[in-house]
Amino acid sequence: MTIGIGIIGAGIMGADQARTLATHVGGTKLIAVSDPDEARASNVARANEAARHYTDGFALIEDAAVEAVIVASPDDTHARMVLACLRAGKPVLCEKPLAPTVAECLELIAAEQRSGRHMIQVGFMRRFDPAYAAMHETLSSGRLGRPLLMHCAHRNAKAPAFFTPEMSIANAAVHEFDIVRWLMGLEAVAVTAIRSARKGEGTLRDPILLLLELENGVLVDIEIFMNAAYGYDIRAELVCENGTVELGRPAPNLVRHAGEEARTFPSDWRGRFNDAYRLQLQAWIGSLRGKPQNGAGALDGYIATLIAQAALRSLASGAREEIAPDASIAASAA
Amino acid sequence: MTIGIGIIGAGIMGADQARTLATHVGGTKLIAVSDPDEARASNVARANEAARHYTDGFALIEDAAVEAVIVASPDDTHARMVLACLRAGKPVLCEKPLAPTVAECLELIAAEQRSGRHMIQVGFMRRFDPAYAAMHETLSSGRLGRPLLMHCAHRNAKAPAFFTPEMSIANAAVHEFDIVRWLMGLEAVAVTAIRSARKGEGTLRDPILLLLELENGVLVDIEIFMNAAYGYDIRAELVCENGTVELGRPAPNLVRHAGEEARTFPSDWRGRFNDAYRLQLQAWIGSLRGKPQNGAGALDGYIATLIAQAALRSLASGAREEIAPDASIAASAA
Amino acid sequence: MTIGIGIIGAGIMGADQARTLATHVGGTKLIAVSDPDEARASNVARANEAARHYTDGFALIEDAAVEAVIVASPDDTHARMVLACLRAGKPVLCEKPLAPTVAECLELIAAEQRSGRHMIQVGFMRRFDPAYAAMHETLSSGRLGRPLLMHCAHRNAKAPAFFTPEMSIANAAVHEFDIVRWLMGLEAVAVTAIRSARKGEGTLRDPILLLLELENGVLVDIEIFMNAAYGYDIRAELVCENGTVELGRPAPNLVRHAGEEARTFPSDWRGRFNDAYRLQLQAWIGSLRGKPQNGAGALDGYIATLIAQAALRSLASGAREEIAPDASIAASAA
Amino acid sequence: MTIGIGIIGAGIMGADQARTLATHVGGTKLIAVSDPDEARASNVARANEAARHYTDGFALIEDAAVEAVIVASPDDTHARMVLACLRAGKPVLCEKPLAPTVAECLELIAAEQRSGRHMIQVGFMRRFDPAYAAMHETLSSGRLGRPLLMHCAHRNAKAPAFFTPEMSIANAAVHEFDIVRWLMGLEAVAVTAIRSARKGEGTLRDPILLLLELENGVLVDIEIFMNAAYGYDIRAELVCENGTVELGRPAPNLVRHAGEEARTFPSDWRGRFNDAYRLQLQAWIGSLRGKPQNGAGALDGYIATLIAQAALRSLASGAREEIAPDASIAASAA
Repeated sequence: MTIGIGIIGAGIMGADQARTLATHVGGTKLIAVSDPDEARASNVARANEAARHYTDGFALIEDAAVEAVIVASPDDTHARMVLACLRAGKPVLCEKPLAPTVAECLELIAAEQRSGRHMIQVGFMRRFDPAYAAMHETLSSGRLGRPLLMHCAHRNAKAPAFFTPEMSIANAAVHEFDIVRWLMGLEAVAVTAIRSARKGEGTLRDPILLLLELENGVLVDIEIFMNAAYGYDIRAELVCENGTVELGRPAPNLVRHAGEEARTFPSDWRGRFNDAYRLQLQAWIGSLRGKPQNGAGALDGYIATLIAQAALRSLASGAREEIAPDASIAASAA
Repeated sequence: MTIGIGIIGAGIMGADQARTLATHVGGTKLIAVSDPDEARASNVARANEAARHYTDGFALIEDAAVEAVIVASPDDTHARMVLACLRAGKPVLCEKPLAPTVAECLELIAAEQRSGRHMIQVGFMRRFDPAYAAMHETLSSGRLGRPLLMHCAHRNAKAPAFFTPEMSIANAAVHEFDIVRWLMGLEAVAVTAIRSARKGEGTLRDPILLLLELENGVLVDIEIFMNAAYGYDIRAELVCENGTVELGRPAPNLVRHAGEEARTFPSDWRGRFNDAYRLQLQAWIGSLRGKPQNGAGALDGYIATLIAQAALRSLASGAREEIAPDASIAASAA
Repeated sequence: MTIGIGIIGAGIMGADQARTLATHVGGTKLIAVSDPDEARASNVARANEAARHYTDGFALIEDAAVEAVIVASPDDTHARMVLACLRAGKPVLCEKPLAPTVAECLELIAAEQRSGRHMIQVGFMRRFDPAYAAMHETLSSGRLGRPLLMHCAHRNAKAPAFFTPEMSIANAAVHEFDIVRWLMGLEAVAVTAIRSARKGEGTLRDPILLLLELENGVLVDIEIFMNAAYGYDIRAELVCENGTVELGRPAPNLVRHAGEEARTFPSDWRGRFNDAYRLQLQAWIGSLRGKPQNGAGALDGYIATLIAQAALRSLASGAREEIAPDASIAASAA
Repeated sequence: MTIGIGIIGAGIMGADQARTLATHVGGTKLIAVSDPDEARASNVARANEAARHYTDGFALIEDAAVEAVIVASPDDTHARMVLACLRAGKPVLCEKPLAPTVAECLELIAAEQRSGRHMIQVGFMRRFDPAYAAMHETLSSGRLGRPLLMHCAHRNAKAPAFFTPEMSIANAAVHEFDIVRWLMGLEAVAVTAIRSARKGEGTLRDPILLLLELENGVLVDIEIFMNAAYGYDIRAELVCENGTVELGRPAPNLVRHAGEEARTFPSDWRGRFNDAYRLQLQAWIGSLRGKPQNGAGALDGYIATLIAQAALRSLASGAREEIAPDASIAASAA
């Protein structure tokens, strides 16, 4: 039983997903790739032995050999592509964010509920990262007691020129928003965005410090720094009653040279989270073949967007902003 | 030329200072020790070959052979002891805090100014810690650019039963207040104390997160956790424009046993800052013998108390509290 | 184009390979599994969706749908299985050792040469380990200059009861023999096995220190310790003219608890080399689909066995033993 | 009770000892410094407030105010200076080696025995290094079981132009010879010096690998590399029955910059062993004031020279050389 997959979007993320699927995941086959840029679609399809390519994502969804879909198109197209997948009855793995607006996210949740099946996975791949998974396991063991406080940092070497402070929250910090909920099983209740001294010449000047308040009074401080210069570095330490657990500092080698012992940083997220992307895809394919689904769902996608919206309001207002899920969600959660 | 020293207070700190002075510092001699508890004074004096002991600190200050004084008596006695030293014309190294109230600190600054000489050093020993000193040097080199943000954590294994949240600020966080000013050469303008989920049964339930705002918009977040359980652990990372510098993780050995590679934490501050206390004493004795004075002065002691008072107000109010030095200080600084 | 694979041997290694192939590698399909123990063969086949199982490896090789073969049967069957694959014209990935005797290895090299094609890959999976690969890249960059000396340690938590000193060389140290040749591109000329104080109650008492001499005078010391107790730990530091490069110490997390900061060791090789096995399989499948072959070949398998034989002689004699490849090999290398 | 000290030799080591004694050790006073180069003697004396200087070491020993002597003159003068101290009844701390020849060492042991008192300490300062001391403590706790094997490396950034292979053993490796005996409480029985590929243009081309055999079959491999280029780096890992203990990697800070996280190495031994030298001096002064003597004695100095001589023979012969203490020593030890 081999699952046929279609990928919508042949940009950096789509091309990466196509290659990972074709090379590093068993039990599946890439059927088709779509992109408005036909050459791009065609290249990614051919490089990964997909039979067909499309310039229209909806046409790909209708392809009978495509049994499930990966959405890696621009953020503002996510909702309509996912909706089309639901209508076609095809499970979908959607890159984060599920959708940029909470209204769209709610619409997708409702549509999935109407389908009566679990159909949507959101690409919060950190849940599959071995280091975060080990942190989750340590916390779950109870050995360290309850979580009290958490420190996070999300650093990129250099933001693209078009990056805005809003994007650093909606596209970068959103990963932290999801992972801290998943690690602790606690919902976020408020967020405050605090400006520090910052660097940068363009539209994005940072770092920004986010203070995320979870249930039970657990605080999470998150440094978001898209211009950290030295490399891509993701940090997290969870402070519990009896001890702390921190992400290790992965490095294949130590090099001693010219008075220093050094380990290197990856230049971007791929060097750090390649394995998480691969394991996410493999688990998703597994879930399509009957194994339990253990990735982020539509509700998680909605909540991540909800927190991001509150953080953006706080960035504008300078004040603490509460995070209030829609009444329909709160009711279904109760 | 051997400098004769008297120590006021024969508690833990005073006894440590006496032993360090007698054993690990050259060019000096312990002359006398005072403590209201005569046995304690006598024991510490004898153990370190001091000729005399007193039950009255003022009497020790008057001892003609005592050329300079270390004040390690209870916090609320600091001001009057230091004042007596100034009157006697004897330089003094006063354990932090210089005094618990800003009024007393201002009085001591005024008294020292009247003396026309540099007479007061405050025991902010971290300035002499090799790791903080290396961080200072790295920052000063300019290689990392301007500082933007700083993350600190101050963790003790277990707070004494009598410890209060107020003491965790006035006695513990005060070290961070001083060291961040010293590292960056920037003054603090406001502070917010934020409660997180916390543990502990007694009067002190923590951790507390402090958000200290410095000039130029530099933010410092400080976790104060007196009940961290696992050990004594001081952390600091300074985030700059081009990179970051973090305190190393000192450990004499790595032990591999039972599935783990482990380094140990000291159980309290002595295992971490013994060298800083020793180097502080040695530098102070050096300054009495003519070398430049490079420790914290009365003004630094005043500002540390001023920040602590603001943090305590914030702890009570839940609001951001501004830090406003007395007009006389602002004027003299201008 | 999906490559059909058969696996001979359904023990620990065979079952691991089957699962990795079916789940973590694209472009391939597990067709059949063989094992003299039919239940074992059947279980591994079913668990990984292979269509058929055999009790006879030769029958599996003859299966028309099997396009390439993984040999994971007992060491002393390797040669005849690989030979049957060559006769059937099917590429083969053979677990190390290629064969326990140099005579068998030479026979396989000759048979492959007669076939006129590259047919044999030997499962020295460390060549695909990201840490060793990074070390290779650092060395190749020339930044550290020529290699001069290398320190290795190969530690297992606990040897199985049936393990002998000979097995610790032929099955464990053999990985070091291959990887040091691959890293430096230098051949081994002599080896000395040195007994140290040792522990253990059974047939295997160790550690053993091996001194491997490479061309150009490069020395490699290798500690082989199958009873190291604390965990599975593989170490290597390459000392070069301008600096050194050492395998990093991978650990997903740091846990601070009870006075210690600890990282954990895997209990056996799977926790350390899972990725290497996966990447080896993926690269082998890639080579079957036309990409360059970059694993160890039959010649490498022969040389590893040759060094192991010399080390075993040295273990018995206590003397330095030279490593002299067969004249036919030396001639073809010239 | 302040002990008056004289220092013979005002070169690098003597000047360092003088400064450490005057500044960082209590209960003592530097009385006099001698050096054939009068300006050098005078400068070191004045800089450290010593009352007098001499051009003749013997005259210094005769100075009535000098109660104990530090010998930091050239190696070949050690024996006669120490002998003069013994004759004058003055305890002596002699820089390693105690003497370059075993005959001289034996003469000093005999002279000390005749004096009926413990008079000689040899400057094997590593016994006072906190990291080696912690390793000793871990081993003594019994938690790791018996020692089986030990790996050491002694790396200097760059050997002085006049350095010879012989000096790298007699002046550098001699520290390892002493510390492994001290750590494990086991005597050395044989040593083999093995040449590897090496670098360097001058008289010293290295690294050299030493294989030291201790009682009970414990092996110690020691890399001696005076031209390691990248920095001063001392490594040691003790492999025991239940686990291993390794010297930590001290570094005040971690700096993240330009794609790397780095810690720095000291450029020479002073950055690494300053504390050990200080603590050695402090303990020696303590022993003169009645505390137990816990440094290396004349017998340790003799044995270090004995091992060094055997290693030098092995370097010349290429063979394993036995280490046989003089019959008089073996008898007294029995």
